[in-house]
Amino acid sequence: MLMSILLYDGFTTLDIVGGYESLARIPNMQTEFVAKEVGIYAADTRALGLYAWKTLEDAKGTDILYVPGGLGVYAAQRDRQILDFIRKSHETTTWTVGICNGVEILATAGILTGVEVTTNYFARERVAKLGGKVLKTRYHRDGKIVTGAGVSASADAGLFLTREIAGQKLAERIQLGIEYYPDPPFGPKTVDEASDEAKAKIVDFEKRGEEILASIPRQF
Amino acid sequence: MLMSILLYDGFTTLDIVGGYESLARIPNMQTEFVAKEVGIYAADTRALGLYAWKTLEDAKGTDILYVPGGLGVYAAQRDRQILDFIRKSHETTTWTVGICNGVEILATAGILTGVEVTTNYFARERVAKLGGKVLKTRYHRDGKIVTGAGVSASADAGLFLTREIAGQKLAERIQLGIEYYPDPPFGPKTVDEASDEAKAKIVDFEKRGEEILASIPRQF
Repeated sequence: MLMSILLYDGFTTLDIVGGYESLARIPNMQTEFVAKEVGIYAADTRALGLYAWKTLEDAKGTDILYVPGGLGVYAAQRDRQILDFIRKSHETTTWTVGICNGVEILATAGILTGVEVTTNYFARERVAKLGGKVLKTRYHRDGKIVTGAGVSASADAGLFLTREIAGQKLAERIQLGIEYYPDPPFGPKTVDEASDEAKAKIVDFEKRGEEILASIPRQF
Repeated sequence: MLMSILLYDGFTTLDIVGGYESLARIPNMQTEFVAKEVGIYAADTRALGLYAWKTLEDAKGTDILYVPGGLGVYAAQRDRQILDFIRKSHETTTWTVGICNGVEILATAGILTGVEVTTNYFARERVAKLGGKVLKTRYHRDGKIVTGAGVSASADAGLFLTREIAGQKLAERIQLGIEYYPDPPFGPKTVDEASDEAKAKIVDFEKRGEEILASIPRQF
């Protein structure tokens, strides 16, 4: 089975790694990192670089398409090559995965019309306008489309999909391998229980997301 | 404040990213990825590449030293330059962080004697033999040393340390930014509650860790 993880400038790393860390450990899973060009892509922090070692042109016929979010989503959504790649790949995938506002890229590509999805807090309205039926859940499966809420929800969505693919026993072994028994030191239990002040700040931050991304110097 | 994340061949990515995703978002945090040489380092899956853009020689006087684990720990522990770098950095850090069996590298560097730490399930005995006082907790702080259990515990340890550094209010905002309200689809609540069969398989896997790492072809 082949999993293709899409990279673009300004992705959020945990959107990828939370799911990758389970899914890539399924026996016989081949994992590849794909992007418009081969090279090092900078995360939204501009400090972390992930290597894309296959071009979209060369990445064809994948089984699992995995699309993360990040502040780079706004530019990615305007990129015809990325949208075409998603549409074309989705025609033959076994699973198509969107995390955080990566779900917005899938929606812009036109593959979420009438599909039940989740996404991160600030992207709910936009995904709904693009045709998705947005649920306020941590992760969700509708047919072959699996979506996760914001950033760290990739770990829950990834473990869920690992079980769908490989069964309960193996998923539990992988869960132990990565010791995914989370225990945050504080906080509410869901995004909707967070303080209104914190939610307002996140929404404001994301509204200026593209500008903020452009303002942080790339470190390498 | 400067955070230096150590890379070496065969790290586990979520060991890094779970903590990085909170800590790197603290205002005015500078984050750098350091290794023996500048270049792309392959994770234990051999499919993911992270870019180290500063050498250990050039990385001096950091505030936060962050050491992940992975199957590459065995080789890293035999590397005098890496051990010297850890010892030297630790003399002047504000915080020294070890995740998963990255804690074993810290112990081998000799900085954990008599220190209360946690580590991943299979590394507990080895860390204890190297002088650490091993606790069975998700994360732990002893003075300026913060340790996390296996892999995904980096998210809990990272959010904990984010609060220690930046206070509750900002930590809650960062928590919302990454929506760290975990909700795994199944599983026990702690590593010690996992099935004996799964634990035996993990221990066996790790015993052959170095051999397994060498057997997986690097994908790029």
